[in-house]
Amino acid sequence: MKNIISHSFNISAEKRAKLKMHKPLLLWFTGLSGSGKSTIANAVEQALFEKGIHTYALDGDNLRQGLNKNLSFSPDDRTENIRRIAEVAALMLDAGLVVTASFVSPYKKDRANVASIVGDDNFIEIFINTPIEECERRDVKGLYAKARAGEIKDFTGIDAHYEIPDQPIIEIDTTKKSISESVALILEQIDSRLSL
Amino acid sequence: MKNIISHSFNISAEKRAKLKMHKPLLLWFTGLSGSGKSTIANAVEQALFEKGIHTYALDGDNLRQGLNKNLSFSPDDRTENIRRIAEVAALMLDAGLVVTASFVSPYKKDRANVASIVGDDNFIEIFINTPIEECERRDVKGLYAKARAGEIKDFTGIDAHYEIPDQPIIEIDTTKKSISESVALILEQIDSRLSL
Repeated sequence: MKNIISHSFNISAEKRAKLKMHKPLLLWFTGLSGSGKSTIANAVEQALFEKGIHTYALDGDNLRQGLNKNLSFSPDDRTENIRRIAEVAALMLDAGLVVTASFVSPYKKDRANVASIVGDDNFIEIFINTPIEECERRDVKGLYAKARAGEIKDFTGIDAHYEIPDQPIIEIDTTKKSISESVALILEQIDSRLSL
Repeated sequence: MKNIISHSFNISAEKRAKLKMHKPLLLWFTGLSGSGKSTIANAVEQALFEKGIHTYALDGDNLRQGLNKNLSFSPDDRTENIRRIAEVAALMLDAGLVVTASFVSPYKKDRANVASIVGDDNFIEIFINTPIEECERRDVKGLYAKARAGEIKDFTGIDAHYEIPDQPIIEIDTTKKSISESVALILEQIDSRLSL
């Protein structure tokens, strides 16, 4: 450079948060396929957006087609899938966003890894604990039918295990709570965490 | 759900842009190690931030330690490195941010892949064309010395090739332009692209 300037130009996470007027946070929705993770996450994002909060929604739709399209559903690749999502979330938190992430994420160790990557204080584990009978009855994507027919292997809840969270910050059974009740519950829990 | 609601809750990229009051954009800084990519990118981010623009800076510091820590510097892994960065940038553009990305990114095909992942209209290629003699003279990280000593293999400019961009939108030789001149040139080029 003709003019070397010694001070740092870096914009800090604090400055980015100040511009957005709220703290960043990761809302991690875990639960079976068809439990209602994405539906509730999207409703939460909508509610946050209406309050002027800068949000982003990570889910299978935008991850499996893009960043993680070179990963399978083997246990190792599931772990790498969740690791990459956590690293993306960490960058987005650094950018000042409130991020929703909706992934089955069946393994405790992977969810613990997410918390360690983004920082425990930034990680809100939300367990969408809808009974599997109801998830399978809904079968929005027809995946349970395929799993029962043996067309999909290692399907969580059928022939692959889901490890229930020990102490989720929020737990919701969507057969007992409406979407709007679920959103209200989540907003109540996170409200104070968003204030600068 | 107790109450199934048929309309979509999704917040669109347009809505997120509207909240931020500017369009998203990816500023891709390519050039040799020591050319001044990160320094100029950081100065650009600072200038954009001061205008109230929501920014994020991707670079080796936050990528190689996190998302891409399981990648080497082999040609295949360099390609995967750039692909993942492009996918992260695409998500951040979808979130409404103006993203700076500072990576040597020596291969034309990889940079073309970035453009195709984020969309040509969102991709601003900025070639930091500082002569290698000057990059090596600076050698801020001591990497050229290690490459000359054979301690680092496949170092771009020494024993690995850098493919010069054919038609970068902006080209800067930092031995001829100051940081502030470089920032002014870039802001002038992108100003109209940021308006909603």
